[in-house]
Amino acid sequence: MPNKVKEAWKAGKAVVNGWLAIPNAFSAEMYSQCGWDSVTVDMQHGVQDYLSCVACFQGIAASGSGATPMVRVPWNEPGIVGKVLDAGAYGVICPMVNTPQEAANLVQYAKYPPAGTRSNGPIRAGAYGSAGGYQATANDEILVIPMIETKQAIENIEAILDVPGIDGIYIGPSDLSFSYGLTPKLDVEDPFILDIYEKLLKETSKRGIAAGLHNGTPEYANRMIKMGFKLVTIANEVGLMVAASKNAVKVARG
Amino acid sequence: MPNKVKEAWKAGKAVVNGWLAIPNAFSAEMYSQCGWDSVTVDMQHGVQDYLSCVACFQGIAASGSGATPMVRVPWNEPGIVGKVLDAGAYGVICPMVNTPQEAANLVQYAKYPPAGTRSNGPIRAGAYGSAGGYQATANDEILVIPMIETKQAIENIEAILDVPGIDGIYIGPSDLSFSYGLTPKLDVEDPFILDIYEKLLKETSKRGIAAGLHNGTPEYANRMIKMGFKLVTIANEVGLMVAASKNAVKVARG
Amino acid sequence: MPNKVKEAWKAGKAVVNGWLAIPNAFSAEMYSQCGWDSVTVDMQHGVQDYLSCVACFQGIAASGSGATPMVRVPWNEPGIVGKVLDAGAYGVICPMVNTPQEAANLVQYAKYPPAGTRSNGPIRAGAYGSAGGYQATANDEILVIPMIETKQAIENIEAILDVPGIDGIYIGPSDLSFSYGLTPKLDVEDPFILDIYEKLLKETSKRGIAAGLHNGTPEYANRMIKMGFKLVTIANEVGLMVAASKNAVKVARG
Amino acid sequence: MPNKVKEAWKAGKAVVNGWLAIPNAFSAEMYSQCGWDSVTVDMQHGVQDYLSCVACFQGIAASGSGATPMVRVPWNEPGIVGKVLDAGAYGVICPMVNTPQEAANLVQYAKYPPAGTRSNGPIRAGAYGSAGGYQATANDEILVIPMIETKQAIENIEAILDVPGIDGIYIGPSDLSFSYGLTPKLDVEDPFILDIYEKLLKETSKRGIAAGLHNGTPEYANRMIKMGFKLVTIANEVGLMVAASKNAVKVARG
Amino acid sequence: MPNKVKEAWKAGKAVVNGWLAIPNAFSAEMYSQCGWDSVTVDMQHGVQDYLSCVACFQGIAASGSGATPMVRVPWNEPGIVGKVLDAGAYGVICPMVNTPQEAANLVQYAKYPPAGTRSNGPIRAGAYGSAGGYQATANDEILVIPMIETKQAIENIEAILDVPGIDGIYIGPSDLSFSYGLTPKLDVEDPFILDIYEKLLKETSKRGIAAGLHNGTPEYANRMIKMGFKLVTIANEVGLMVAASKNAVKVARG
Amino acid sequence: MPNKVKEAWKAGKAVVNGWLAIPNAFSAEMYSQCGWDSVTVDMQHGVQDYLSCVACFQGIAASGSGATPMVRVPWNEPGIVGKVLDAGAYGVICPMVNTPQEAANLVQYAKYPPAGTRSNGPIRAGAYGSAGGYQATANDEILVIPMIETKQAIENIEAILDVPGIDGIYIGPSDLSFSYGLTPKLDVEDPFILDIYEKLLKETSKRGIAAGLHNGTPEYANRMIKMGFKLVTIANEVGLMVAASKNAVKVARG
Repeated sequence: MPNKVKEAWKAGKAVVNGWLAIPNAFSAEMYSQCGWDSVTVDMQHGVQDYLSCVACFQGIAASGSGATPMVRVPWNEPGIVGKVLDAGAYGVICPMVNTPQEAANLVQYAKYPPAGTRSNGPIRAGAYGSAGGYQATANDEILVIPMIETKQAIENIEAILDVPGIDGIYIGPSDLSFSYGLTPKLDVEDPFILDIYEKLLKETSKRGIAAGLHNGTPEYANRMIKMGFKLVTIANEVGLMVAASKNAVKVARG
Repeated sequence: MPNKVKEAWKAGKAVVNGWLAIPNAFSAEMYSQCGWDSVTVDMQHGVQDYLSCVACFQGIAASGSGATPMVRVPWNEPGIVGKVLDAGAYGVICPMVNTPQEAANLVQYAKYPPAGTRSNGPIRAGAYGSAGGYQATANDEILVIPMIETKQAIENIEAILDVPGIDGIYIGPSDLSFSYGLTPKLDVEDPFILDIYEKLLKETSKRGIAAGLHNGTPEYANRMIKMGFKLVTIANEVGLMVAASKNAVKVARG
Repeated sequence: MPNKVKEAWKAGKAVVNGWLAIPNAFSAEMYSQCGWDSVTVDMQHGVQDYLSCVACFQGIAASGSGATPMVRVPWNEPGIVGKVLDAGAYGVICPMVNTPQEAANLVQYAKYPPAGTRSNGPIRAGAYGSAGGYQATANDEILVIPMIETKQAIENIEAILDVPGIDGIYIGPSDLSFSYGLTPKLDVEDPFILDIYEKLLKETSKRGIAAGLHNGTPEYANRMIKMGFKLVTIANEVGLMVAASKNAVKVARG
Repeated sequence: MPNKVKEAWKAGKAVVNGWLAIPNAFSAEMYSQCGWDSVTVDMQHGVQDYLSCVACFQGIAASGSGATPMVRVPWNEPGIVGKVLDAGAYGVICPMVNTPQEAANLVQYAKYPPAGTRSNGPIRAGAYGSAGGYQATANDEILVIPMIETKQAIENIEAILDVPGIDGIYIGPSDLSFSYGLTPKLDVEDPFILDIYEKLLKETSKRGIAAGLHNGTPEYANRMIKMGFKLVTIANEVGLMVAASKNAVKVARG
Repeated sequence: MPNKVKEAWKAGKAVVNGWLAIPNAFSAEMYSQCGWDSVTVDMQHGVQDYLSCVACFQGIAASGSGATPMVRVPWNEPGIVGKVLDAGAYGVICPMVNTPQEAANLVQYAKYPPAGTRSNGPIRAGAYGSAGGYQATANDEILVIPMIETKQAIENIEAILDVPGIDGIYIGPSDLSFSYGLTPKLDVEDPFILDIYEKLLKETSKRGIAAGLHNGTPEYANRMIKMGFKLVTIANEVGLMVAASKNAVKVARG
Repeated sequence: MPNKVKEAWKAGKAVVNGWLAIPNAFSAEMYSQCGWDSVTVDMQHGVQDYLSCVACFQGIAASGSGATPMVRVPWNEPGIVGKVLDAGAYGVICPMVNTPQEAANLVQYAKYPPAGTRSNGPIRAGAYGSAGGYQATANDEILVIPMIETKQAIENIEAILDVPGIDGIYIGPSDLSFSYGLTPKLDVEDPFILDIYEKLLKETSKRGIAAGLHNGTPEYANRMIKMGFKLVTIANEVGLMVAASKNAVKVARG
């Protein structure tokens, strides 16, 4: 299965990414049919763990939509990075990468030798490998995406982006605001934060890597694609469900 | 906990009912906070079984919303009717009740002696019973709601409604259309079906019992409340999620 | 593994039986180490379904206690009777057996040909069969135990007990009281009910089969053993936990 | 997705069918990549229930093998037949169909009006429907396959096969032997049973419907294809695993 | 929902705390109705992981008892601390905090900026936030409670307690004894250990923070409240169940 | 229950070890009856997490085979090492131990004081302890087995093996090859790698500790026993199932 995110990025295009917080394969399967280019299991803030991530990956695959499965790991820790890759993730988004060393660690956990120290044993991923063999292509195919979401990360941004093996970055707007002493929120209009976005777009673009952003609404996500972001997420599936449900109740009551 | 549906019906008011197809307590909990008067676990067409129903009931209760938990059982069978009531259902919606005998069977399964033959052992339900004791009030508190969704049921409607212990009916529009040789659908405009609705509203109203309807959209549900329905459901939680997601993808792509 | 209940009954002894309502193998495993002769998974009023029953059976076996696994099925239905036997039940307790025909149905569901029509495929049970083969001994080894818990069953008692293949009966005191218009309760002192117990003990004893009883307290259970009951259950594991917890809180508060 | 079994049968070819007893989506997914034309979740004798069946269906779909998902239901009961079809089964194998009435009941449960009384709500199945809509094609696409596995069924065979809507039959060799007073086994050589097979092949062939058989070994299955069977199953996945494991231990020990 | 533990501590009162080892929401729900002020999911030594913790939190909430949900994390690791807080924990008990640096790390993981580096995304916790918003009050509301259970921790106790953000400590008596070369046990009478308790009570009291203790029996727990402990736990739910069960079997046997 | 691995090693014998990747207790139970001396739950590359490990341990115990339960942890991290030991592991295999410090850390996490810092609370393990008490014998009974699978580990091998508390080593052939720039594979014939095996056998033998190896086929495993390995694993259960299934399909098709 081709990595749609990687292909889009090569073609200079943006992807619209789904986000799974509900630990259920049926929910994941239905959601994956909605047109997302990729669907990410959120193991950090979502109600997800490793086995629910595997179940969601199966739901994504079962949907037949070709959506690329990715994961946000709970933390920059080698055990879980290896496990989600073995389960078939085509991309790893890692929270709170604040220094070049942390970025280098992430790359090391996610890449087979000689680029890294990932252990061999792609239990589910290997079953779907290309003809040349999963291990031969994994280092190229799998996206390594640190989250840039703190003041410290912004201050270190050039060194972080220079770490070999980084394919893109993902911005967590609410943590970023929080770390600058602002109220945490998505879809920010604060010029201070928007300036940071511009800087990150420039620095990533300069290095031929992509920038992604978590958004609260599809309208804002669309604006961010136009601004230059190459991966946009809209809330998560439970957030969309809750918003639609509240509206449905209101309309039904009249 | 009061039965909101029963209270509303006593007051002549309509309730807006949620519908759970995703077998997950977290999803159920979040959904239950959206303003529904009652939330029904759909064990017939939803991806639900008995243990997921219990989990969803816990999600509904955990939400603190006071939404009344109900269930649609997969079939008119005494084992499962007893089990969902023991788990804490305040109402049982039963599919495909086509004759007075089937309606009487349903009542028998759902009521303690002498009204019925339900077996005693409200493992979860009893823990939340009123001061007078769960067993003393269950026959009054718990709603028995056969689904009227076939030509045969319509032909038997008066005898079905006359069965003692029936608190209301619930119409499945797509099965009803199907059984008359029409294309199965929700939110019907076919005058033939709408005439049946009118007849059912008249016959239930005459007997002081309520009529409920499954709807596809909140707008139609609102119209049906105005027409006289006392319980309206809008699709289910996964349907609302899918519709919202497809729209989000479209808007994000621009 | 020998059937401890059958062996005890042959020796004229009573067994102390555990009762599982929590659908969890760890809980079942710990509980099974407490000295019970047999442990019954309650699929009727317990929070149990088929897969949790299998998990509990594994917990019982894992405990190494040699406690005999039994099950109370949710209803007298051939599908579930076959499934729990395939999973390794050594005894089936079936609720609400009120007529000889219902008793004969139960026997039919639980026995291989020619005694019954149970389908062959003991997926888990067969793996632990005796040298002669599970299928060759199952009809003898597995206990068929209808519940006697209604006025109708009492009125039919001799004919029910005469059904070939019945190994014992199990009395549900609260349903029995309920069906006679009394308040449902365990550990009854009402002479009317106690007279029924005496009659059941006499009729079962006459036929060389055993009578069992569900009890609320171990003291009452002990008294019932002395009265002649050959299988006594004490509440269930969650009931014992709740009682112990309430007491612990009270003592800790002083 | 095309129904591979139906297509093969139309073309006069036999299918090799997998059989799932382990209630786990990962196991199902890996097994589904092994070349089976169809994979059947065994809810009767396998350690499976409704939700594990859904999970296995997702595993089958996630495998990308195009194997057609089918199910053996635990019993001829309308609730479960409807639920597994809603979950996406392309074929229903039903145990212990012994009379034309039982066969007609099965057809009724599995077909939408006017051919039957299946209720509308294909929660998972509908999401993968053809352009014309799942409901419009389901009655044609979904295979209804009663099991012929008792003396009584053999005696009624012509009338059973004449029931409209039957697409094939499936023989359970061990139950068939059992019901004739023989030792239950697979891969029988007893001429008496083989004669029955011949008769069933003749009667099905005459009516243009298919006959399937459960086998213990692939060698026997191959022979049965040559004999005329159009669907052959080989043990189940756990049986293959156990046999391979015992052999591996033996070889490793030397 | 108010934090009962925090309120009690403000008022100078002790709380009686429950402890969950069984990974099941039903068990947790029933146990939570027994009068505990708070209920802690034990992810270190209990049979619990992140998703079972979420399920238990839902069970606690569903009980309607108002018991405050807390967690003992398996280790002092930022990923899991963030996840349990997002799930709705009102307090984090962390094992084996032996140095001020480890205590400071724990505070950092558990607090939003500027007090710490917890990442924003309270998926379940946020849904129940106060009017002012969960993020605005979380740092104040959530209790950070390191376990003091080694010789090293005792030697560093003043520096540990001086770490800003520590709300209390929790003593693990068996590990504490173990680290001093004594036999590990609860409800110790060894004057050497009791002297340590006195010292810990004095040092915490001096700083206006609370001391908690794990107990084996409610009698000892009551004594410890009188000694000055502000949070006492009694064994866990499975321990109480096992003790009650062993006793029930003994009494039933006579 | 005796530790079969330890006993065999004391007697100078080799053990044949099973390997579980499927997160299911039924599958584990059936597999554990196949003759393995020990069965290891693979939490690194298997589709396993902590709760599935507990379930598999129950399956192993329920099998009654006496197979010794072990685990490969996902990473050298104290939280998970403690949890699997509390769950009843008799041996811990830890991936990627490359330095004496890492080996010493592993020992520290796995041993009670004074040999290490493992926290006391053997929730499931303690229930099966010897008469003298689980805590008194655990440090002796439980095997600590670092994986030697990198160039760095080979370079540090003598210092690693000299770390007190190491009972054996386990070689991961594919990672070992990978780290030397070779293609990752099992059952290697490359003399360079085989020389490393010889060296490891010599160094372990010299110190009276055992060497284990992961194998792809039972034939190779047998050869390795002859070469001196004291623990050999053959693929895993899902690998054996897949190989057997592919072969069955091929044979059935003819």
